Amino acid sequence: MDECVFCRIAAGKIPSAKIFENEEVLAFLDIGPVSDGHTLVIPKRHYSRLDECPAPTLSSLAAALSCTAGAVQKAMKADGYNVLCNNGRAAGQIVEHLHFHIIPRKTGDGLFRNWPSYSYPEGKAAQIAEQIRRMLEK
Amino acid sequence: MDECVFCRIAAGKIPSAKIFENEEVLAFLDIGPVSDGHTLVIPKRHYSRLDECPAPTLSSLAAALSCTAGAVQKAMKADGYNVLCNNGRAAGQIVEHLHFHIIPRKTGDGLFRNWPSYSYPEGKAAQIAEQIRRMLEK
Repeated sequence: MDECVFCRIAAGKIPSAKIFENEEVLAFLDIGPVSDGHTLVIPKRHYSRLDECPAPTLSSLAAALSCTAGAVQKAMKADGYNVLCNNGRAAGQIVEHLHFHIIPRKTGDGLFRNWPSYSYPEGKAAQIAEQIRRMLEK
Repeated sequence: MDECVFCRIAAGKIPSAKIFENEEVLAFLDIGPVSDGHTLVIPKRHYSRLDECPAPTLSSLAAALSCTAGAVQKAMKADGYNVLCNNGRAAGQIVEHLHFHIIPRKTGDGLFRNWPSYSYPEGKAAQIAEQIRRMLEK
């Protein structure tokens, strides 16, 4: 995937502010941060989306996410952090190489306040859960 | 953690619309969805935050997230999905039991449009990356 910007970063062909690296995973600063210390964690191999990523790589990603998130929070003296993974254009994914954002947060910073939740009408949740379970069994 | 609502759901003391379950992990529908099919994936044991969760549980969570996200997207005929994990009150975490949201998305649904990114001034990214790497080494 020579045209993919994150493949090029993973291969060292584009420089990045590296945070963490092992055989499978790379963490580096997002150059368009939402807050200082905003970090991206990616698999070095190209997968577009979370549901395409094989189990061993998922394990490495999760371990890297956990330790990197702790370090980001401490280094930025943040009060918390969001981990966010957008899958597909409809979900705001810009670079089509699987990536997790770690976004350090401070109390009252005003980021991401929009959470338009609602309630299911009677019976709807059970029906949707059944639909999803059927897909899991396939 | 008998007072924790997600511990009670994991223990079957509060009913939920279950999607997936194994020894370590449970996936169930969020009762206050942002979109139909909005699913939560949690470790059954109580950890507050991602950076507190041990590696074997992280692996199980990541595997469950990946397969559940694929099933949610297919079942909801969604165009994409967000995976989101809020850590700490400052980041919007309400229930202090580690949980990942899977939020199915449709093109143009208007959710989560706010992404106020900026650029680092010269030299700042290298300095921040160094601060975070120091914390990783501790």
